[in-house]
Amino acid sequence: MRKTVSGIKEIAKRAGVHPSTVSRVLNPQTRTLVSAQVAAKILNIAESVAYRRNSMAVGLKTNRSFTIGVIVPDLTNPVFPPIVRAVERTMGTEGYVTVLADTDNSIETERSVLESLCSRQVDGLLLATALLNDEIVAECQERQVPFVLVNRTVTDPAVTGVVTNDFYGIRLVVEHLVTLGHRKIAYVGGPLNTSTGKSRQEGFTEAMSAYRLKPDARIMFECKSLTTTAGEAACQSLIEGKRPFSAIVAANDLLALGCYAALSAAGLKCPADVSVTGYNDMPFAAHFAPPLTTLRIPLTEMGHQAAQLLLRKIRDPKTILPSIQLQPSLVVRGSTARPSAATASTVRLTNHR
Amino acid sequence: MRKTVSGIKEIAKRAGVHPSTVSRVLNPQTRTLVSAQVAAKILNIAESVAYRRNSMAVGLKTNRSFTIGVIVPDLTNPVFPPIVRAVERTMGTEGYVTVLADTDNSIETERSVLESLCSRQVDGLLLATALLNDEIVAECQERQVPFVLVNRTVTDPAVTGVVTNDFYGIRLVVEHLVTLGHRKIAYVGGPLNTSTGKSRQEGFTEAMSAYRLKPDARIMFECKSLTTTAGEAACQSLIEGKRPFSAIVAANDLLALGCYAALSAAGLKCPADVSVTGYNDMPFAAHFAPPLTTLRIPLTEMGHQAAQLLLRKIRDPKTILPSIQLQPSLVVRGSTARPSAATASTVRLTNHR
Repeated sequence: MRKTVSGIKEIAKRAGVHPSTVSRVLNPQTRTLVSAQVAAKILNIAESVAYRRNSMAVGLKTNRSFTIGVIVPDLTNPVFPPIVRAVERTMGTEGYVTVLADTDNSIETERSVLESLCSRQVDGLLLATALLNDEIVAECQERQVPFVLVNRTVTDPAVTGVVTNDFYGIRLVVEHLVTLGHRKIAYVGGPLNTSTGKSRQEGFTEAMSAYRLKPDARIMFECKSLTTTAGEAACQSLIEGKRPFSAIVAANDLLALGCYAALSAAGLKCPADVSVTGYNDMPFAAHFAPPLTTLRIPLTEMGHQAAQLLLRKIRDPKTILPSIQLQPSLVVRGSTARPSAATASTVRLTNHR
Repeated sequence: MRKTVSGIKEIAKRAGVHPSTVSRVLNPQTRTLVSAQVAAKILNIAESVAYRRNSMAVGLKTNRSFTIGVIVPDLTNPVFPPIVRAVERTMGTEGYVTVLADTDNSIETERSVLESLCSRQVDGLLLATALLNDEIVAECQERQVPFVLVNRTVTDPAVTGVVTNDFYGIRLVVEHLVTLGHRKIAYVGGPLNTSTGKSRQEGFTEAMSAYRLKPDARIMFECKSLTTTAGEAACQSLIEGKRPFSAIVAANDLLALGCYAALSAAGLKCPADVSVTGYNDMPFAAHFAPPLTTLRIPLTEMGHQAAQLLLRKIRDPKTILPSIQLQPSLVVRGSTARPSAATASTVRLTNHR
């Protein structure tokens, strides 16, 4: 069924042009080198003879597969689909197909995915999986595969990524809670071996200090994964620890949802007894019970910017590109309120159970 | 950096075997043809010389790309990530990489995605986008690309797909609502040019009749897309129509969420004034305000079964495989309750506004 490169000659003959002109038009990357009129004529003929550009043969010849890989840690986290969709669209307009792989937070899976993508000679990679010291990133550098990080970054400042300003974001929620009257603020954070986990925790400590509140390590938790289950376990420990608190800053919306579950199981109401904030403004955050106060990060913009950077890297692998930092914004919904008279001071929450 | 097929000779020499044995071991499809001991030895050597299987060259030679495409209508609908993840895993264990494409419900995008995937010579396709009469499905049949449908199917019974028993599912929710005491039940459905839209609507009509309730066309709506926005608009029309109703059966969880929004905007409480049911039990449905009563469909199983069928189609394109129908189950949560005294009879809802 499929026609190969030999089809080019047939199209050229019918159009009365040189085969190289046909090649240029059939490749979206070089189409603009040919006049619009001639291009339209050739595309019509190509369609009428049901020509299919054989990308594999072209790939071997030009050493381009026009395929990029996107590696995400957890496709079922609703934060990633909007990012992936934006990447697909931006790459698609340049003639690239996006291969998506989901590692389920497993380094072994990620290693085999990388192997598989490289053996298919992807032209570049977008990684949403980076740890602060990341062996996959090191491997990409060694293999000289163009890549860009998205959402998380690494300690090496030479690596290009698109991230959000976590410091600023956490400061916004702490400010919001302090303004409402909260003083005893707990923190449920992400893994400290990720840039987002580390900088959000540092941002929390710094923001508390800026308001002359002492961050209390006994009500600060590190979750090993960014899931509702991990958030629920941390919040359960927080409640069992019997230290007073009237609000929880969670480093991610799924962790915040887990806190909802633990509070509810302990008979505590949000926000009447405890205020909760998230991070990401993931889809459906407005529909939760209660609707979640969180930090909105521009997910579509993040995907688009990362794809743009990757395209530049693919075109010129030696180019050094600066990382991009996007600003989060505070979205106030129903999960935060003034502390109740009882919880505002140092009265222990356990009194209410 | 990348080594090509010539690397096979080097590995064969070091292992003291014939190059064809090395080829067999490096291909996950044929690895079991070689003894485990020899295979392990070859894999170790291959790793030590950093051999990368050049899938593109192999693809041209064997006419296999070991890549499949998955086309979804809307990646931001949380129903699809669990299906896609299951497909990725099942195909991954057989050495296939999954290319994901998202059409955003556009037939034009789908057409260009299909063109792009076929030019990359994918070995097969999983389509979650099918309309009852689908030109992309027809195109796949014409091109003789192995494909399997997932979630939705077409009128042609010769096409293989994995779907749920929509008739049975809708009957379960109608039964649940009738048992609670509801008689005036409205329906907010999906597009009637999809199998799910059509059979859920037919299932609704039939289930109502089975309980000797007359389905009222004036409180039945067809949404053109499966989005919260479309569900909200339909529910708004329902409320404005001033026909009495005490419950809404929505054909999808996102439509149900849209109903929540419209009810809330009209000052109606769910479930006190109106009960609402969904379909899919999408991730986070338990966290909504109120938690959604819905039909659980085995999303992971659906993706796994579809991938298994596709593998069989790829291995034997002439094989005729039966479609698989999975059973939904009812999950009762907080969005359904007995009708209030006022709404249970024929009193118009508008009295409560």
